[in-house]
Amino acid sequence: MLIVHVFIEVKPEFVDEFVDATLANASASVKEPGIARFDLLQDLDNPTHFVLNEVYRSSDAPAAHKETAHYLRWKDTVADMIVSPRTKRMFHNLFSADEEWA
Amino acid sequence: MLIVHVFIEVKPEFVDEFVDATLANASASVKEPGIARFDLLQDLDNPTHFVLNEVYRSSDAPAAHKETAHYLRWKDTVADMIVSPRTKRMFHNLFSADEEWA
Repeated sequence: MLIVHVFIEVKPEFVDEFVDATLANASASVKEPGIARFDLLQDLDNPTHFVLNEVYRSSDAPAAHKETAHYLRWKDTVADMIVSPRTKRMFHNLFSADEEWA
Repeated sequence: MLIVHVFIEVKPEFVDEFVDATLANASASVKEPGIARFDLLQDLDNPTHFVLNEVYRSSDAPAAHKETAHYLRWKDTVADMIVSPRTKRMFHNLFSADEEWA
């Protein structure tokens, strides 16, 4: 799997709206054939900090995701809710095995 | 779920040994009743950087994990393989729902 952690800091007054928009994007994203998981995590020590845990079945899948209507709508919707440009890290899984991520 | 991301930088000469020790710990950890997932991720841009993705079913489960023989063995084994003290962030899941993490 290709696992992408996206780090997002949200302006405090937009946290609820950001969560609503991101839940809509996540629930549509998990239906994409190239996506095994798409989780939204909220930092316990700083509730304006979020991580997207995006688990892709192939190296082509992120590009396909970025062409979907739900991603483009999310990107536009949250653009002004975010403190700074979002950052990411990319990983591969040594454990669990691929079949454990679906 | 209580999700803990543990960030670990490994000395280059110990990467293979670290992976072996951590796979042993992970495969034992996923059998703990309080643990839903326990993943080892390797950073694609810097293969000496790892993240443990630990998904606990309750706030008590991390303490129980730290008392297991496999955790204590791992902690001792990797102590001298790590560049700096490991750090962590803690999260809760807004998406996916709890039943999707097992």
